[in-house]
Amino acid sequence: MSHNTFGHLFRVTTWGESHGPAIGCVVDGCPPLVPLTEAGIQVFMDRRKPGQSRFTTQRREPDEVKILSGVMMDDDGVQKTTGTPISLIVENTDQRSKDYSEIKDRFRPGHADYTYLEKYGIRDYRGGGRSSARETAMRVAAGAVARQVLTGVTIRGALIQIGEHRINRSNWDWAEVDNNPFFCPDKAAAEAWADYLDAVRKQGSSVGAVIEIVAEGVPAGWGAPLYGKLDTDLAAAMMSINAVKGVEIGNGFEAAGLTGEANADEMRMGADGRPAFLSNNAGGVLGGISNGDPLVVRFAVKPTSSILTDRKSVTRDGEEVDVRTKGRHDPCVGIRAVPVGEAMIACVLADHLLRHRGQVGGG
Amino acid sequence: MSHNTFGHLFRVTTWGESHGPAIGCVVDGCPPLVPLTEAGIQVFMDRRKPGQSRFTTQRREPDEVKILSGVMMDDDGVQKTTGTPISLIVENTDQRSKDYSEIKDRFRPGHADYTYLEKYGIRDYRGGGRSSARETAMRVAAGAVARQVLTGVTIRGALIQIGEHRINRSNWDWAEVDNNPFFCPDKAAAEAWADYLDAVRKQGSSVGAVIEIVAEGVPAGWGAPLYGKLDTDLAAAMMSINAVKGVEIGNGFEAAGLTGEANADEMRMGADGRPAFLSNNAGGVLGGISNGDPLVVRFAVKPTSSILTDRKSVTRDGEEVDVRTKGRHDPCVGIRAVPVGEAMIACVLADHLLRHRGQVGGG
Amino acid sequence: MSHNTFGHLFRVTTWGESHGPAIGCVVDGCPPLVPLTEAGIQVFMDRRKPGQSRFTTQRREPDEVKILSGVMMDDDGVQKTTGTPISLIVENTDQRSKDYSEIKDRFRPGHADYTYLEKYGIRDYRGGGRSSARETAMRVAAGAVARQVLTGVTIRGALIQIGEHRINRSNWDWAEVDNNPFFCPDKAAAEAWADYLDAVRKQGSSVGAVIEIVAEGVPAGWGAPLYGKLDTDLAAAMMSINAVKGVEIGNGFEAAGLTGEANADEMRMGADGRPAFLSNNAGGVLGGISNGDPLVVRFAVKPTSSILTDRKSVTRDGEEVDVRTKGRHDPCVGIRAVPVGEAMIACVLADHLLRHRGQVGGG
Amino acid sequence: MSHNTFGHLFRVTTWGESHGPAIGCVVDGCPPLVPLTEAGIQVFMDRRKPGQSRFTTQRREPDEVKILSGVMMDDDGVQKTTGTPISLIVENTDQRSKDYSEIKDRFRPGHADYTYLEKYGIRDYRGGGRSSARETAMRVAAGAVARQVLTGVTIRGALIQIGEHRINRSNWDWAEVDNNPFFCPDKAAAEAWADYLDAVRKQGSSVGAVIEIVAEGVPAGWGAPLYGKLDTDLAAAMMSINAVKGVEIGNGFEAAGLTGEANADEMRMGADGRPAFLSNNAGGVLGGISNGDPLVVRFAVKPTSSILTDRKSVTRDGEEVDVRTKGRHDPCVGIRAVPVGEAMIACVLADHLLRHRGQVGGG
Repeated sequence: MSHNTFGHLFRVTTWGESHGPAIGCVVDGCPPLVPLTEAGIQVFMDRRKPGQSRFTTQRREPDEVKILSGVMMDDDGVQKTTGTPISLIVENTDQRSKDYSEIKDRFRPGHADYTYLEKYGIRDYRGGGRSSARETAMRVAAGAVARQVLTGVTIRGALIQIGEHRINRSNWDWAEVDNNPFFCPDKAAAEAWADYLDAVRKQGSSVGAVIEIVAEGVPAGWGAPLYGKLDTDLAAAMMSINAVKGVEIGNGFEAAGLTGEANADEMRMGADGRPAFLSNNAGGVLGGISNGDPLVVRFAVKPTSSILTDRKSVTRDGEEVDVRTKGRHDPCVGIRAVPVGEAMIACVLADHLLRHRGQVGGG
Repeated sequence: MSHNTFGHLFRVTTWGESHGPAIGCVVDGCPPLVPLTEAGIQVFMDRRKPGQSRFTTQRREPDEVKILSGVMMDDDGVQKTTGTPISLIVENTDQRSKDYSEIKDRFRPGHADYTYLEKYGIRDYRGGGRSSARETAMRVAAGAVARQVLTGVTIRGALIQIGEHRINRSNWDWAEVDNNPFFCPDKAAAEAWADYLDAVRKQGSSVGAVIEIVAEGVPAGWGAPLYGKLDTDLAAAMMSINAVKGVEIGNGFEAAGLTGEANADEMRMGADGRPAFLSNNAGGVLGGISNGDPLVVRFAVKPTSSILTDRKSVTRDGEEVDVRTKGRHDPCVGIRAVPVGEAMIACVLADHLLRHRGQVGGG
Repeated sequence: MSHNTFGHLFRVTTWGESHGPAIGCVVDGCPPLVPLTEAGIQVFMDRRKPGQSRFTTQRREPDEVKILSGVMMDDDGVQKTTGTPISLIVENTDQRSKDYSEIKDRFRPGHADYTYLEKYGIRDYRGGGRSSARETAMRVAAGAVARQVLTGVTIRGALIQIGEHRINRSNWDWAEVDNNPFFCPDKAAAEAWADYLDAVRKQGSSVGAVIEIVAEGVPAGWGAPLYGKLDTDLAAAMMSINAVKGVEIGNGFEAAGLTGEANADEMRMGADGRPAFLSNNAGGVLGGISNGDPLVVRFAVKPTSSILTDRKSVTRDGEEVDVRTKGRHDPCVGIRAVPVGEAMIACVLADHLLRHRGQVGGG
Repeated sequence: MSHNTFGHLFRVTTWGESHGPAIGCVVDGCPPLVPLTEAGIQVFMDRRKPGQSRFTTQRREPDEVKILSGVMMDDDGVQKTTGTPISLIVENTDQRSKDYSEIKDRFRPGHADYTYLEKYGIRDYRGGGRSSARETAMRVAAGAVARQVLTGVTIRGALIQIGEHRINRSNWDWAEVDNNPFFCPDKAAAEAWADYLDAVRKQGSSVGAVIEIVAEGVPAGWGAPLYGKLDTDLAAAMMSINAVKGVEIGNGFEAAGLTGEANADEMRMGADGRPAFLSNNAGGVLGGISNGDPLVVRFAVKPTSSILTDRKSVTRDGEEVDVRTKGRHDPCVGIRAVPVGEAMIACVLADHLLRHRGQVGGG
């Protein structure tokens, strides 16, 4: 069962609400002898943390991660994992619970308020409680651990669409991703997006986005044929992120419109004497198993549900009301979903690396 | 772990290769006292089985399902589940193993031949072995059991796109779905598709498709906030089906292009005195939990990889060759994916019904 | 969840009732390229099968196992596993359902009749249904697969106590185990037991037993510190066998009476230049992890509940009655528990071998 | 997989080493609306905490538990669970790492030092690291949460044997258990044990113990027939506790010596009009399912491995040495195992309560 756990051999369990004292996670199953430091994890926390540009929530949290267990200095003074569970924690410092009091009994449209109450009969209304995007900080922390396990694998993400505006793929430059507040690989697009999103933000509105994650260096053979497919777990990982409504592998929905001739990735022998694919429509997965080509995963994030415009709603007691969500919100939650998506891919891959070791090798 | 198992409380484990003596599954966790007969399952098997029109593979298998365990006649002569595992089996009768001998050492582009061999060092080349679409017969059988558990829930699927041809949604008529060989809800589209797909078939080519599944009658409250999200499991279920490359919930990728105002499903009190949504952009899931509206899931199936045109490939020994896949294949494997998708949704929902019972109820 | 599944990476799911058409299991997660034949499995089935002496049930079942999936002939003509699920099946041929009609509505003391009905509201009364010892045939089949995975490991079991009669451990001779109908390693004890058990059998009575299983050749390092302890899984495996009421590792309950000095297994360097233990009170496990010494597991089986003497009971309708259980039963079900215990140990070890591969290895 | 997690629907994941900054656990799957406070948990922490008599380690830790997530004040001012993961933490305050420096490279006999190093290639030698009995504090905390879920169930434990000294069962008085430092239900035995254990302690020696846990109020029907047996999970839970070497249910190993007539628990109709058992040899479980009678579980704890007498050992580098373990240790670790055993039983039962809800109920 997996209420709050992700993965099988590399297992991440997250806990914590937006407005409690802290949030955290336990990474269980990380192999021993993997170098791991707080500073190494913090690099990735900082990419996701709020308040770094005017396009993300102005909530200011340092998001400093602490390692509470599972590591030890080796004889050479390098801190390494010991094979025991790694507990990571981040204190919540900027909570402002009062912001939320007025939506205590109202269901914010697009939010999980109504469904949580229907399920549990009680809900933590402060900042979305468990469904707050704040939880994704711990995914990024766990993903940083996973990256340490994945030697030789490079995982990078980019925002490729914001609202109705898509990048021009021929402008793709990974080096640009960190030069703009959108993780956008198309310099020209990023410039246009700044104006566009400023307008959205000033209206108190929001827009959705599409993110693409690419993992290079995954060898052929990870995954399994059917219910343990690598792409099944990638899809589940993406869909488990707040606000995600769609996932694609390789050419995804576009594949539906192609013929078998156009879609097949032909093969020839590569310069290294190994079979090589001449295209990557498959997005690096065939029959649930990695084929050695880059994994390509895209996912769609819906527009932030917290907006400053009145929406029709009802209260817990059945009164019909109009709701607008004050507070400090991301006009496009998809931006900060880039490091989160990368982290989830890292967790899936670390899990599948370990699973692969346990699946083969004969008697 | 889930190499060949799907679900947690309602668990389905499938086994069998295309060209072995039989395929089967074990449904574990089905509650007791649920009426279940072979005839009741067979209805769904027959919707999926091959050879029913010129648009699906001419392989002819009766696909007769047998129940080997887990049921018993009650005192009123009604056969019911006993709470013990239900073993279902279908014999393979039309195997023609010789058809496949010539691709024994060649990697068919788009197939899992290469990745299976990379992973396992051995592969059952006969009919795709484990990765054959034949395995989906057992998903349909398990789904038929799941439907028995889901009293009050209606699950229906339809083909909404074939190749580049989409239906006109304003023509949608569920009653049409069983009147054409495509499970198409748009009568006019179905007629046009017949000519189109005849041409594809005669060229020995293939095309992809998009399927939409709708589940009505699911009450609010099934699912869980994060890693046990209902939509996470729906996405995983769809992606676990052979040839699927994309999954959407509700308005899916289209949500990325919308504003928060347009995407929010507003609420008012319904005629029944309960909160009601005025639209269903969410596709019936909010924050991972069902909201009482119909669940709407779409998935994209790539074109059948088995085509009669030469594609470049290599052999196990590194020789560069051209491969075409003879044999009897579906020109659009997406057609038969409709009952398979329905079945997988049924399995996910049965699992979540049982999980919900185990998640709430207090001390 | 594990209603009917055992193991994590080497997973066994069994199905079937005593009086249905067949029983079977699915072994999922077996690595590829492991040699496996029906004949190789049958050897172990035959050790467990009933009717081989006057001391086990006279029910006669050939217990012929068939492999329905998951294997393939390799290029050298050796049948090997392919990494896909292995479906094993045994037909039920000697069912005599009528024997059980009179206990349809009566709870047999010591049997699960009452608890099944309380749980499920329906029970298969024929031969105990799912709780029949017949299910253990599939454990033995799965164990035979596990043994193939465990190259270098020898797993042997013996009956060391029957009723109140214990063997003399100084007479222990593994070679004797297959020379008597009790799997008894003490020749003198076996002779005395024959007379003793004849008397028990003639009275229609029954007795319990203690079994000891020893696994040699397990390297140091399998297992995990706390909830994934090797001994935790060994204990669970033993307790999952019908009629088992106690489990010990190493010197077990006797350890409670010892001092720390007496119980510690001291260490010295062995002739092979590796650390060696000077005793094996631990039974081969320290802190949940194998230490390289033989694993020693003992378990207690209660007397067969089916006896020919009247016992007080009640019916489904609350009538007080006396029940005696006719039919063909083992006077000591512990005898046939020896190959079952061996098989379960094999399954646990195969699982932990694969888990170990997935737990270590660094990044 | 379950490296550091216990349970399926009521899931406990523990983390932390003896000498890190803190230890903790995450309780996932606790139903909503269950009253829960730190003070309520602390009551149970205090029963286990060290330094309460001269018979337990003099390490002094306040063991103050904090709840970091998963609870919320309801409208009536009662703090309740919300259905989200409950994070519990206890700071380590009395660590004295220097005590352990001299055993950094030596394997303490009876400890997991050797096996951890064999498995992981690195080990936290400070205080046993992950294998420290300190981890059991979090089991007790999780057990306190489980007790809140188990309304109507009473779980009590007692020490019934220390070294070779067993209680006289006819003296059993639950009220005595909290009147002596041994959790002993036999007043006379407790007095004798004080002298005995003083002598053991003064010699720097240690002894083992047997604990019995009784759970009353469990209704008939929890558990499942085979691999999800209630007794299987009880056995696993006990064996997962440090130093446990044996587990029994009901009359356990004694059952091996009985006849079927003597062992059967006969039935008659009870005063409440429900079937009642006339004895409880079964210990409350029949066929893996609770029968409504008290659950009776016993487990054996080996003598504390840390003793002040030299034992032969070797170092990491293969040098033969003598090792004695200085520091502050329990002369009988079995004493503090009483609240730990109770807690684990509570966790198993809470899990099975939730599983039962998810297993029955029909379609």
